[in-house]
Amino acid sequence: MSDVVSDGNDEEDHDAGLSDRLIESIVAAVDAQDTDRLSELLEPLHPADIADVLEQIRPAERRALLGLWSGEIDGEILSEIDDSIREEVINALPRAVLADAVRELDTDDVVDILEDLEESEQSFILDALEDADRVAVEQAMSFPEGSAGRLMQREIVAAPQHWSVGEAIDYLRSEETLPEQFYHVILVDPKMHPVGYVTLGKILSSRRDALLNDIAEESFRTIPALRDEADVAYMFNQYHLISAPVVDEADRLVGVITIDDAMTVLDEEHEEDILLLAGVGESSLSDGVLETVRRRFPWLFVNLITANLAALVIAQFADTISLLVVLAALLPIVASMGGNAGTQSLTVAVRALASKGLTSSNAARVIRREALVGLVNGIGMALIMGAVGFWGYGSALLGVVLGLAMVLNLVVAALSGVLVPLILNRMNVDPALASGTFVTTMTDVTGFFVFLGLATMVLL
Amino acid sequence: MSDVVSDGNDEEDHDAGLSDRLIESIVAAVDAQDTDRLSELLEPLHPADIADVLEQIRPAERRALLGLWSGEIDGEILSEIDDSIREEVINALPRAVLADAVRELDTDDVVDILEDLEESEQSFILDALEDADRVAVEQAMSFPEGSAGRLMQREIVAAPQHWSVGEAIDYLRSEETLPEQFYHVILVDPKMHPVGYVTLGKILSSRRDALLNDIAEESFRTIPALRDEADVAYMFNQYHLISAPVVDEADRLVGVITIDDAMTVLDEEHEEDILLLAGVGESSLSDGVLETVRRRFPWLFVNLITANLAALVIAQFADTISLLVVLAALLPIVASMGGNAGTQSLTVAVRALASKGLTSSNAARVIRREALVGLVNGIGMALIMGAVGFWGYGSALLGVVLGLAMVLNLVVAALSGVLVPLILNRMNVDPALASGTFVTTMTDVTGFFVFLGLATMVLL
Repeated sequence: MSDVVSDGNDEEDHDAGLSDRLIESIVAAVDAQDTDRLSELLEPLHPADIADVLEQIRPAERRALLGLWSGEIDGEILSEIDDSIREEVINALPRAVLADAVRELDTDDVVDILEDLEESEQSFILDALEDADRVAVEQAMSFPEGSAGRLMQREIVAAPQHWSVGEAIDYLRSEETLPEQFYHVILVDPKMHPVGYVTLGKILSSRRDALLNDIAEESFRTIPALRDEADVAYMFNQYHLISAPVVDEADRLVGVITIDDAMTVLDEEHEEDILLLAGVGESSLSDGVLETVRRRFPWLFVNLITANLAALVIAQFADTISLLVVLAALLPIVASMGGNAGTQSLTVAVRALASKGLTSSNAARVIRREALVGLVNGIGMALIMGAVGFWGYGSALLGVVLGLAMVLNLVVAALSGVLVPLILNRMNVDPALASGTFVTTMTDVTGFFVFLGLATMVLL
Repeated sequence: MSDVVSDGNDEEDHDAGLSDRLIESIVAAVDAQDTDRLSELLEPLHPADIADVLEQIRPAERRALLGLWSGEIDGEILSEIDDSIREEVINALPRAVLADAVRELDTDDVVDILEDLEESEQSFILDALEDADRVAVEQAMSFPEGSAGRLMQREIVAAPQHWSVGEAIDYLRSEETLPEQFYHVILVDPKMHPVGYVTLGKILSSRRDALLNDIAEESFRTIPALRDEADVAYMFNQYHLISAPVVDEADRLVGVITIDDAMTVLDEEHEEDILLLAGVGESSLSDGVLETVRRRFPWLFVNLITANLAALVIAQFADTISLLVVLAALLPIVASMGGNAGTQSLTVAVRALASKGLTSSNAARVIRREALVGLVNGIGMALIMGAVGFWGYGSALLGVVLGLAMVLNLVVAALSGVLVPLILNRMNVDPALASGTFVTTMTDVTGFFVFLGLATMVLL
């Protein structure tokens, strides 16, 4: 037990991330090859914080640290560490340490570690496990990636539905291999079909002769093992679940998913959405330069192609621009406003789709709202740019043309911002993917066309 | 208990959001004023799903539904419903129903509801509570918004640290007012300072004569009541907490925060980040047109100003453009590539700051990496645009100028994408706020200046 946190107000924030000072001290101990000091600094830390230390220091320091301290690396640290450096850390560990480390983990954490390793590493870890665990892990690996089956742990606390509280307590007291953390006892029928669950709080506060069936929770949800993990995360969040039983196709209990796994998935889904919207696929701060280039280049390349499309539109109006060069200066304003308004609608729509707030029952209303918002904002911007045109560029008509282009551009931006993700979603494509490029292309092309077209007709 | 979900694979996805069909049926029942049918449809639903129904239907339908079914609205539904329509729903409820509804809630949920209401509503709800609850709620409201004190519930399960398992079980069996859900028994000293906690699983699996102190968890963290809720969410996520005791300034136990509250905060923080990055403040799909305009207009207005800055840069080169109109067509390519590359760096940096993966110990390395990534991507794009310039616009020199501008633009984009949020963060400003506008302005201005400047020197 530690009181590290209770006095956190005046001290460094031990509970909200690592302090820079601590990381500096750790690096200093590594540089000095001072194993004792290193242990003294690292031992009080939570495995998640040690994993963060490993992620934040330089690769060379990481190797040195692992060389000095590898014996102490436990399974929790391996499980917490970012995918992008996990393989490197595992390779740096002595085989015996690695074997010990994975043996103490719950099966779901072992599965999580195995997923990203090469086959030779995988089979070494599988061989290190006890027989029962190995079978459980191999079964979990047989479910598709991203499914509830991969996410669940096989360590289950279940009881026959006819048991009393006393029988359950006696069973729990005698059972040697209970999971690290569990929050419910799952009630099963003789065929191992889950039929309900009882919270531990209810068991503890009921008399020994009470029947488990009588104190079971009212609402009870099971998760099919093939269900997508994003749906699982949604269920936990929506229904405030702490744990939920997983069933196979014959509806038999095969595992349990707990809220920490669901929270991790939810976190990953959010991360994915935000990165996809920004045109970055997966990414990690530990990635090297070339890895990062490899991930971002394709998005920039697609953007380069669509930007050239927009440039082609402008090139059609070269004669107009050569007669009225001020138009060239105003083009980026048109593009930037359309892009911004489109991103606003787009982000709201993508988030609403992800949280299932945007459905076919309100899609028509949302589309109408976005169009109206685009119209009103467009008119506002048009009035401002009209004034800018009049006073800034000495032509009221130029202001009117720019204003009209802006109104249309913002309506197109607002509409495509919500329509593109809706269409992608209906096609079962992640709406966060590439929506941005579509929407900007749409707003750029229409914006430039309308602005320069109107200018050609009205101003020349 | 229901088996609604276990057969979810071939049926509609009851567990992953509401089906469109169900919402249509509910609206039909409302239109037909068929109260029985409405109850039949709504009663099996989880309060969170009923809240979603209320959010997704039209305002007029919502009023009609509440008129037909208001007696059944319970506290959970009020607690689940989106802030943007909660006041409307509360106003539609008969006073007696509202009073009953709030009385069944845990204090943290009552606080959550009160936060957004007007004072007259607040005092009505406070008066409806039992005395002890009212005091607890008023005390929670005395903590600043967004603090751990606001988030916690006052319903606590605590035991003296010298108790045995048997004493704890006897106490829990005799205690009448336990919280709906609890996962730990908090151990306290005679002055109510928390000194550790025991999981219910450990209590259930230990002998009656075991001492609570001996089976307490190894790691134990308390949360100061004034701690920011974002830090609380970070702690729950980082350390896989299920519940954590909250202490006042004298380190006395005053409440408990459970994981569902932390998950809600985490969700809100993510949402805020993603919306701020997109230039949308708060927003909800239930907002009307004017509300939405009001929220988005300021961001567009700021963008309009900065876009005009960029236009001013272009206007300086009017002579160059009039001599070589093709430059005008290429300007949006420069802007768009810089904007995209900047958004990529920016989003990665903002996310890394939020998850505390970007700290002063690795900031220098990340900045260097971003600059190198910008350089490599810039050279790649420059080569492509060099070819486009040569074959597409018939001038290799034009390609070279465009390419050089692009290299510099992508380096500036990558650098400002990570530097701007780092600086905002050091100034204690949310790095997601307005970073986007800063970064685009920076890339637009430098991009245009370098491109047109080089063109003036080299091409004329």
